[in-house]
Amino acid sequence: MQTDLVISRLLNAPRAALWRAWTEPALLAEWWCPKPWTTQVKAFELRPGGDFHTFMQGPDGGTSDNPGSFLEIVPGARLVFTSQLTGGWRPATPWMAFTAVISLADELGGTRYVATVMHPDEATRARHEELGFFEGLEPAIDQLEATARQIP
Amino acid sequence: MQTDLVISRLLNAPRAALWRAWTEPALLAEWWCPKPWTTQVKAFELRPGGDFHTFMQGPDGGTSDNPGSFLEIVPGARLVFTSQLTGGWRPATPWMAFTAVISLADELGGTRYVATVMHPDEATRARHEELGFFEGLEPAIDQLEATARQIP
Repeated sequence: MQTDLVISRLLNAPRAALWRAWTEPALLAEWWCPKPWTTQVKAFELRPGGDFHTFMQGPDGGTSDNPGSFLEIVPGARLVFTSQLTGGWRPATPWMAFTAVISLADELGGTRYVATVMHPDEATRARHEELGFFEGLEPAIDQLEATARQIP
Repeated sequence: MQTDLVISRLLNAPRAALWRAWTEPALLAEWWCPKPWTTQVKAFELRPGGDFHTFMQGPDGGTSDNPGSFLEIVPGARLVFTSQLTGGWRPATPWMAFTAVISLADELGGTRYVATVMHPDEATRARHEELGFFEGLEPAIDQLEATARQIP
């Protein structure tokens, strides 16, 4: 839809390792935002309605606070989260309204990784794109791939 | 919490009948808004992430359009829905941001019915209350009780 932003990548890492890199907070913190920014995982309750809260800090003191909630989890295959709610389904007033659907599937000996980010309207999608959606997410996915490849 | 509005009522109807009155769209339409307003159930997909959309019309042409989504369903006991998302977890821009938790429990030969409505902040809760939250919900719950009592 016109309100979505989509990134689809074929990653050179096993699906199980990518799932671990996504769902273990210590591993997630390694790749979640492009370096030299760092991520603090403030909450990570991997269940529908569970709290998912990341806080990022840049080298020059910039910060980005992102409370949210998991909505749906299919182990190894699909993960959905939103900024519209926080833990216990509590409604939020996010600075960027979105729901993200992450899907993983075996492909050509690697893993097809698709991130579909839905917005309430075209203006919000455009703002997300202008704020550097692709410039931020592409290197983060490179980092995710690297983290997953280090998992034995 | 200070951002919640809560109604707790002991209803003279069996829990199973109240659940049916809530989860069968034709029955829901009977009691959802205080008469003489009428309800059209535009979508009712009773599953997590399913569309839940009601449209109300008053005798003088007033309308109230309420798209939303179910979040959690425990048959006979608990139902959660929100205005923050619509079907397929898609984010929305609701005119009133809330999540509602409906719980039913056996009590004294009847049913304890509790509606907890969460808002993102105190101002939104206050606005919901001023718009007639209790004045609208109390007679709707009376109607729910009456509908449930007619179920054989």
